[in-house]
Amino acid sequence: MKTNPGRFFEDYRVGETIAHAVPRTVRMGERALYHMLYPARHALHSSDQFAQSCGLPFSPLDDMVVFHVVFGKTVPEISLNAVANLGYAEGRWLSPVWPGDTIRSQSEVIGLKQNSNGKTGVVWVRTTGFNQHDEAVMSYVRWVMVKKRDIDAPAPETVIPELAASVPSDALVLPKGLDFSNYDDTLAGESHRWGDYEIGEKIDHVDRVTIEEAEHMLATRLWQNTAKVHFDATNRPDGKRLIYGGHVISMARSLSFNGLANAQMVVALNGGSHAGPCFAGDTIAAWSEVLDKAETSAPGVGALRLRLVAHRAETQAFTLKSDSGKYDSGVLLDLDYWALMPT
Amino acid sequence: MKTNPGRFFEDYRVGETIAHAVPRTVRMGERALYHMLYPARHALHSSDQFAQSCGLPFSPLDDMVVFHVVFGKTVPEISLNAVANLGYAEGRWLSPVWPGDTIRSQSEVIGLKQNSNGKTGVVWVRTTGFNQHDEAVMSYVRWVMVKKRDIDAPAPETVIPELAASVPSDALVLPKGLDFSNYDDTLAGESHRWGDYEIGEKIDHVDRVTIEEAEHMLATRLWQNTAKVHFDATNRPDGKRLIYGGHVISMARSLSFNGLANAQMVVALNGGSHAGPCFAGDTIAAWSEVLDKAETSAPGVGALRLRLVAHRAETQAFTLKSDSGKYDSGVLLDLDYWALMPT
Amino acid sequence: MKTNPGRFFEDYRVGETIAHAVPRTVRMGERALYHMLYPARHALHSSDQFAQSCGLPFSPLDDMVVFHVVFGKTVPEISLNAVANLGYAEGRWLSPVWPGDTIRSQSEVIGLKQNSNGKTGVVWVRTTGFNQHDEAVMSYVRWVMVKKRDIDAPAPETVIPELAASVPSDALVLPKGLDFSNYDDTLAGESHRWGDYEIGEKIDHVDRVTIEEAEHMLATRLWQNTAKVHFDATNRPDGKRLIYGGHVISMARSLSFNGLANAQMVVALNGGSHAGPCFAGDTIAAWSEVLDKAETSAPGVGALRLRLVAHRAETQAFTLKSDSGKYDSGVLLDLDYWALMPT
Repeated sequence: MKTNPGRFFEDYRVGETIAHAVPRTVRMGERALYHMLYPARHALHSSDQFAQSCGLPFSPLDDMVVFHVVFGKTVPEISLNAVANLGYAEGRWLSPVWPGDTIRSQSEVIGLKQNSNGKTGVVWVRTTGFNQHDEAVMSYVRWVMVKKRDIDAPAPETVIPELAASVPSDALVLPKGLDFSNYDDTLAGESHRWGDYEIGEKIDHVDRVTIEEAEHMLATRLWQNTAKVHFDATNRPDGKRLIYGGHVISMARSLSFNGLANAQMVVALNGGSHAGPCFAGDTIAAWSEVLDKAETSAPGVGALRLRLVAHRAETQAFTLKSDSGKYDSGVLLDLDYWALMPT
Repeated sequence: MKTNPGRFFEDYRVGETIAHAVPRTVRMGERALYHMLYPARHALHSSDQFAQSCGLPFSPLDDMVVFHVVFGKTVPEISLNAVANLGYAEGRWLSPVWPGDTIRSQSEVIGLKQNSNGKTGVVWVRTTGFNQHDEAVMSYVRWVMVKKRDIDAPAPETVIPELAASVPSDALVLPKGLDFSNYDDTLAGESHRWGDYEIGEKIDHVDRVTIEEAEHMLATRLWQNTAKVHFDATNRPDGKRLIYGGHVISMARSLSFNGLANAQMVVALNGGSHAGPCFAGDTIAAWSEVLDKAETSAPGVGALRLRLVAHRAETQAFTLKSDSGKYDSGVLLDLDYWALMPT
Repeated sequence: MKTNPGRFFEDYRVGETIAHAVPRTVRMGERALYHMLYPARHALHSSDQFAQSCGLPFSPLDDMVVFHVVFGKTVPEISLNAVANLGYAEGRWLSPVWPGDTIRSQSEVIGLKQNSNGKTGVVWVRTTGFNQHDEAVMSYVRWVMVKKRDIDAPAPETVIPELAASVPSDALVLPKGLDFSNYDDTLAGESHRWGDYEIGEKIDHVDRVTIEEAEHMLATRLWQNTAKVHFDATNRPDGKRLIYGGHVISMARSLSFNGLANAQMVVALNGGSHAGPCFAGDTIAAWSEVLDKAETSAPGVGALRLRLVAHRAETQAFTLKSDSGKYDSGVLLDLDYWALMPT
């Protein structure tokens, strides 16, 4: 058989390294597309001159473009037979990606646990994206529930990796040269800076976007994520396609501009849950909560730890979980990340 | 409150200058997208070699890309609480935008008039787009009807700016070096030149395009115009989104290639009315009328003043207004502009 | 009349050369768009470094981008009044297209045959695309059935060109410098090489994509193919638009990655039939058959002649024609091409 059946639970071994295929050279075309697919307006990713005023040589690719490209490459070996994408941890952006860079991905299997039903298991991988100089550009842990091919295959030894609840602020990697001393609030779009945000503060981002089938398929394909479930309407009687969770991440992050316009760069992914499935026709809204604050060593640069929640417009802002701890049915995404903001 | 509520009528003062946020570096990615979003075929904006044969260093960004980028930046401060986009005047393209240029916008408030109902008022602004060298790339006057936040706020002194009925032909700014002496009709697609058009002549552009939700949202987002009304289906019971008027402008201008393939560059916007709302599912057709002709100082270059009307396919070409002066319900756009054409 | 009515059957003369309008400079923006519109993952067209490891200076534009751009320019003169696109033959890619190249097209009329009903005729043209150095980048023969303007116009002398059943393997043109000696299977995504494929072998490509109106219109417009039938919903009572056959070609070729990931470059188009009309809502699947194999003079490079069949998901893979020789109603495309693969 020459086509890729994907890996099943019993195909993974703790400690093995999987090199993912199809390296991708990204350029400014990808940036233009990101602006077309999402209401992205953070100035550092929009203007070379603004990026230069922040100490960078020019505007790097949006942090989420990097995440999507690195993630997309892992799909054929990690999530083709996945039943669920369970979580993220210890994600860090390690080096900016510049137009012309070529990205490839590899994953190390760091944990395995067969489920008690014997039909599925959980696989933990640490995925790293590299540029053409073999420098790591980002790294994150993801765990997924994967089907077994053969229910009678023996269960592997259970290995559950120890994962940090969040990336410690002193482990954040700042782009070389970043300097917000001469930051221009007017060009950035808002005057609220790091010092103006308080832990516990919540922001309803007000703006909303209704998603169409064509748009999420264009976006998902752009990252060379070709998982059938996002593209094949014959999978379901209603003809809908399950929307790639990363599409909701980028949509929510872009909507958060309204209230967090100065959260210019995402530098760490502490955790995340795709709390509910998203389909075309859903109207996405978003709210944020400030979880933590930290200083950094770069001039004028502070770090804000934020919860970003995407929800259907019909659900009230600031809704999250019921008393029993289950996500409200209108919640689509609960993301925990660190962003950089001028002090 | 950290999110942007937009400005209300009583927030504007005649004479104030508003700097708009989020500068944008545009490159060839944006040009490729313009060709994907609109049936744009004017050769000067399609081929570097054709542009060089016309005396330019290479192909500049489409004039309408410049308009959309400049306009998009003004939305958060000018039209977030606008009830209607009432008109344009004195629009001029002042310098070509080249790939790699970074565009920002600012607006001067030049007129204010509270409506007699006391609930809304008209705001006139002159918006100018600048490149990274602080050179103006285009400028236009726009007036919008804006809600008052507080109905009891006192009415400002009425100031109605004097606006030219059209840009005089001797005020048109031609790109430096433009020369149509060696113009190639075959590569351009049509053999009708400036001398072949007569004042009063009307052209039905024949081609038609049906608009989908995904497409107008992609286009509008590309210009970082994030006005909720274009993206949020929960605003209306039928789930439709009001289409950005600029999308109709670009669609009609592109359709006008068939009959006006040699109207290579748009250099002035004399006026314009978004005569009716446009929604997904509408099929757009267009017709033009030659309003005026003028010579220019550039070799082989003439100017044509054109009316461009976009209408739903169900409406006959050349329909405009009823005897009472109201636009026919099938008319979507009535635009008045100057274009450059080989003599 | 200033708009283009298109050519009718009696307007063509055997031996005449038609220069097509609107040259187009293509850049990396077009490549990014190709990755967004199709699930394209062949590594040589995705990564500059991978292309360099194959002896090329960097990654050329996808072969199908070249075909679409060359083809799109011919529509106004060749197929505006076409009733059917009947076939392709003797297609060859002659030189890679690099970012920054400008493409134009011209067609020579090489055959004419009026149909017995006297209302239509078949026109054969050999179309060649050129870059800005007037080097041919690709060439192919296409024949279409075209309406007569005047049924009483006299029939031309019948000239039916002799066309090769397929491009002979020794006529394939390989990109200068191509060398698969250091080919990396892991980065390419599959380990099956030229020696692993047998004549007669069939592959079901498994993956599927449901097509939306917005997507095929975006793609078709990108190639400046503005034939009304693809864009105007008022043409048909059901509001559907006939999908450009080239969209199905690119979709099927991209889907064939799964099983043919190493078929990196398409170098010849032996023939092709748009067996059935495709509409939005159709879910496209694809299968391939190995028709022939040939060695080449380039190091480590073999050629595979492949049949690529696109069909609706409801139709079984490997379905083609009934006993009477008619295509099954679920078959959309039957394409015959040569691709290059590492030995």
